[in-house]
Amino acid sequence: SVNPDLASERQTASFSVEKLTALLDGGSEQTRIRRAVVEAIESDPVFSRENQYFQTQNERYEAAVRKAVHLQKKMHEMGWTENGPEYKYIYRALSGDVAFLLHRVFMRSISVLGSDKQIAKWIPLATQHKLIGSYAQTELGHGTYLQGLETTAVFDTATQEFILNTPKISAMKWWPGDMGRSATHTVVFAQLYIHGKCYGIHPFIVQIRSLQDHSLCPGITAGDIGPKMNFEHTDNGYLLLKNVRIPRENMLSKFCEVRPDGTYVRQGSQQINYFTMTTVRISLISDEVLTPLMKACTIAIRYSVVRRQSKLKPGEQEAKILDYQTQQEKLLPQLAAAYAFHFINNYLQELFNRGYREIQRKNFDMLPELHALSSGFKAVITQHCTAGVEICLRACGGHGYSLLSGLPSLYTKILASCIYEGENTILLLQTARFLIKCFMAASAGQPVPPSVTYLAAVKHGKCPAKNKLDFLSPDIYTEAYQHVAVRLTSNTAAKLQDLIQSGVKKHDAWNQCTVQLVQAAKAHCHYIAVKNFAETVEKLETKAGIQKIMKHLCDLFALHGIFSNTGAFLHDGYTSAAQMDMVTASYLDLLDVIRKDAVPLVDAFDFTDKSLNSALGSYDGQVYQRLYEWAQKSPTNQMSPAYERYLKPLLHNTLSKL
Amino acid sequence: SVNPDLASERQTASFSVEKLTALLDGGSEQTRIRRAVVEAIESDPVFSRENQYFQTQNERYEAAVRKAVHLQKKMHEMGWTENGPEYKYIYRALSGDVAFLLHRVFMRSISVLGSDKQIAKWIPLATQHKLIGSYAQTELGHGTYLQGLETTAVFDTATQEFILNTPKISAMKWWPGDMGRSATHTVVFAQLYIHGKCYGIHPFIVQIRSLQDHSLCPGITAGDIGPKMNFEHTDNGYLLLKNVRIPRENMLSKFCEVRPDGTYVRQGSQQINYFTMTTVRISLISDEVLTPLMKACTIAIRYSVVRRQSKLKPGEQEAKILDYQTQQEKLLPQLAAAYAFHFINNYLQELFNRGYREIQRKNFDMLPELHALSSGFKAVITQHCTAGVEICLRACGGHGYSLLSGLPSLYTKILASCIYEGENTILLLQTARFLIKCFMAASAGQPVPPSVTYLAAVKHGKCPAKNKLDFLSPDIYTEAYQHVAVRLTSNTAAKLQDLIQSGVKKHDAWNQCTVQLVQAAKAHCHYIAVKNFAETVEKLETKAGIQKIMKHLCDLFALHGIFSNTGAFLHDGYTSAAQMDMVTASYLDLLDVIRKDAVPLVDAFDFTDKSLNSALGSYDGQVYQRLYEWAQKSPTNQMSPAYERYLKPLLHNTLSKL
Repeated sequence: SVNPDLASERQTASFSVEKLTALLDGGSEQTRIRRAVVEAIESDPVFSRENQYFQTQNERYEAAVRKAVHLQKKMHEMGWTENGPEYKYIYRALSGDVAFLLHRVFMRSISVLGSDKQIAKWIPLATQHKLIGSYAQTELGHGTYLQGLETTAVFDTATQEFILNTPKISAMKWWPGDMGRSATHTVVFAQLYIHGKCYGIHPFIVQIRSLQDHSLCPGITAGDIGPKMNFEHTDNGYLLLKNVRIPRENMLSKFCEVRPDGTYVRQGSQQINYFTMTTVRISLISDEVLTPLMKACTIAIRYSVVRRQSKLKPGEQEAKILDYQTQQEKLLPQLAAAYAFHFINNYLQELFNRGYREIQRKNFDMLPELHALSSGFKAVITQHCTAGVEICLRACGGHGYSLLSGLPSLYTKILASCIYEGENTILLLQTARFLIKCFMAASAGQPVPPSVTYLAAVKHGKCPAKNKLDFLSPDIYTEAYQHVAVRLTSNTAAKLQDLIQSGVKKHDAWNQCTVQLVQAAKAHCHYIAVKNFAETVEKLETKAGIQKIMKHLCDLFALHGIFSNTGAFLHDGYTSAAQMDMVTASYLDLLDVIRKDAVPLVDAFDFTDKSLNSALGSYDGQVYQRLYEWAQKSPTNQMSPAYERYLKPLLHNTLSKL
Repeated sequence: SVNPDLASERQTASFSVEKLTALLDGGSEQTRIRRAVVEAIESDPVFSRENQYFQTQNERYEAAVRKAVHLQKKMHEMGWTENGPEYKYIYRALSGDVAFLLHRVFMRSISVLGSDKQIAKWIPLATQHKLIGSYAQTELGHGTYLQGLETTAVFDTATQEFILNTPKISAMKWWPGDMGRSATHTVVFAQLYIHGKCYGIHPFIVQIRSLQDHSLCPGITAGDIGPKMNFEHTDNGYLLLKNVRIPRENMLSKFCEVRPDGTYVRQGSQQINYFTMTTVRISLISDEVLTPLMKACTIAIRYSVVRRQSKLKPGEQEAKILDYQTQQEKLLPQLAAAYAFHFINNYLQELFNRGYREIQRKNFDMLPELHALSSGFKAVITQHCTAGVEICLRACGGHGYSLLSGLPSLYTKILASCIYEGENTILLLQTARFLIKCFMAASAGQPVPPSVTYLAAVKHGKCPAKNKLDFLSPDIYTEAYQHVAVRLTSNTAAKLQDLIQSGVKKHDAWNQCTVQLVQAAKAHCHYIAVKNFAETVEKLETKAGIQKIMKHLCDLFALHGIFSNTGAFLHDGYTSAAQMDMVTASYLDLLDVIRKDAVPLVDAFDFTDKSLNSALGSYDGQVYQRLYEWAQKSPTNQMSPAYERYLKPLLHNTLSKL
């Protein structure tokens, strides 16, 4: 039975939840396929996550391997293939709690970087799991700056082998997933040396464990890097190489080859490598970043209509905490952001697909824009969603702090997304570099990519809003965001030029502007997200209340951003203080409007109870019963040796009854 | 040997680290005593935290009990007493990783709320650990709003007993520390009923476990609430009471008594109860909030001068990451905040001591101000420091995400401080209520407490700064902070009045202002923190460079606050856009100045390697060696059953060597 405090929230929905779910999925047929995958996975006890919060790191790893192996069987059984429509829903249905994810990266890197011959040899073996692959790039002392990697691969013409070494402790490979305990092979990135000359970073296939007994191969030292904030299921590993010899054929040679005599040959363009990073950054947004925020919103909002605390009106019963303005102000902007980023993700996917088609036609023109957008949005979305999950956690008070709420593990996992696949600050600076370049080009009247043409149109007007309702007009707020993005970019470009003209060296000048460059990059992405949300709403069907509620969310997303960054909008007087007061009034009004549909809006995300894995967030809202039942199963409710060892001797002299 | 990249940072300190440590400790004699306690604790293997990151929740609990029991012996051995000068350093030296902390709260509540007879009976038993106490207030469905607690205590005149019940699942006691597995007794807060009439919440001593065999007493259901985000060492518990009978004498009766015939007698003032909460909120700031931020700064800053990544100047070696402006902008404001909050903590302690003396003379006049300041600063400091620790964690990239960095557990622990002892938003609203009341009083010409007299002096001037150096004048920035606090308070007071005058009911009007009330409360605390830092610097001795470096930190703290909240200062034109650009320039300049002393400034916190328990933060900066050595000891480097069960069957068909 559904908690009546939750049930009542669903009766007053202003829109069709099922229609909104279909919109999010990209059509009702997609919804049907997704639900079938979820049902198949969740009804299979091997994939259960029931005891997850009670398990040790070792137990989590073992379960992840068990699931990965079972998944092969399951896919065969269900007739799911890697190219089928079900495939993309499997990982989400498993909540990512599965091993051998790096095995896929291993395969992808061979497919992309390997010669036809290499692909023919390795891909079938990997597909059949006759080996387990990993991907060893990051080192103890080196991450983002690939040129700094210290691992070496020296070509020995006499034996036609590469000799691999990690010459210093900082050169040790560190972090690669699946490498700590599982992998038999890995792709090692190393500085290639031929006849004493360094040719830079190249990829090499290296066997690290025996296929007979899994013992480490000669010259290999490897193991697990130990406990992390999350990812207990993944065996992130370390790897030391000492004079490890591999055949010449093991250097991935689609783009570069070493001939038997040591001649180095570079063939084809390496630009495609940047495209691979772009792919990864875009692909992680949906499963690794948006899904956790959507889950956190679902948990926190359902809990906030079930939890009653203090009285809002004297004489009445205690109020649902979602009726407090401060609680609305914590949660509803996160909900709006989840929708905003869902739509920007669609935009990025489309752009990416277009870019991919162009690249296949050997046209690389879109690459810089794609790189800038994927870098900037990876940073902005991971940052925003991580903060959002944390807000949801805190908004649930003490119960949010219990692992059983599901919120701590959502938080500790999403946090990693700010760090992996490019540290966020560095990514934002890449976007900023693109912005500055385009701004200079646009100022000089040169053509620039579509997403930055607005930089050319610097206007010195004022915001035309006359009352608080004007701020519910997408034109008004989109223009305000655009103005801020242009101002921050142009001001920073000017500061940079001033510094250089005053004699500061270029790299020093750049460093002295980086705090402001990061602001400009964020403002650019924020502007595009707002604009895209508004344009998406415009195109929605007006039926079933969908467009109306999406418009409210779009307004909230935009006004929350202004309310939280008032200085950026006030700075040059584009927005006046009186207008800022209108923004505040409209923003606070909107909270009240969206609060009425808050539960239907999270229901539309369509998470099952098993996928939420939360005592606070279940569909029926029976929070207290579930917390109690679940806590009783905790291993901490078994007898502890502490009683016999320490408590009994302490207490044994006391009277039996005081 | 010290990593040369770290060693060089210490050679150029602009001040005496030892003198600054003494300043932080409150004198060199205090430093001596603290170091002696730390030495005694850290040299004792029973107190070791070496394997902490590898332990399960059960193992952590057992270790915490072992340490608590051993601590009694140690104190005796060392001649440390609860009233001695060493006492306050013990908890810090243990990093809080010890059981029976609620036993102390049990004792304190009896001392404060119990009659002389009750104190005489229970305190000696508790002191000798002949029982283990806990404190059962929070319920599954009720936290902050004490009047909503559902547990009942019905007086039975026939047997002269109270009959205790948790009538619904939401009435179950939930969260009390030491109660899940250890406690034999607890203080239960329950609604008192006599002859069918409710007299509100009262405290009762209830035995929950046998002193003979630790089995649960009749009518008691109790256990551990399971895994949490941190606090694995604490057995937070649940408690169900079913017709549990306790003698009339077990109601703590200093302020209220039930006579044998059922007559209810209230005696003395209960105002002192609020003072108890004030005490707790102030006392937690130092150990639970400031220490973790100081540790996080130490770890992140030392790491940032050892880690080199990318090139700042072409042709040079990779740069220390602390040389990047963006890294400075992440870490140095946190360092400044740690100092700012250390000094405001001293201020609050002094105010509290003064209040305590007044209360002993039956003068309760200072209570409202003390309550407002302790609530507001508890919220502001926990919030700021939690965010600060998270920034430190992220600033260390991947390695910050490893538990071995120490940062994840600092973060997950400090986060709880935002929730316990009063949820932060609710506390800020209590401060805001005080501010609004005082503002109205001040506007009407009535006297108000010292910390809010500034509210009376509303000035409509403009910031007089003429160039960026003017913003290094404490008068200039303190005045700006004051102006913002007054504006936010007076504007919100006006909105509140307008709403009420337009016919909105008082409680609705209040709710509609809460988002802005929270802003006003934060601005008030921020202003006081800046003012106090500036006044503290003013009084410092000018010798040994201490005053100079503290002045820089004070400036940075103040300007960072303006830079991060530009809108608040720009809104009514008090600060102009041109002045805001001066703030930005001065702020960015300061980063460069403080960067030079960053390592000495964290060295002054004087944490030992054992207390940091971090592979990244050790005094010698041998980061990579330590990460590697430590990871090898992880239980994840033992053989996993996953190999025999899943990997071997998968791989056994493969060729032995590819």
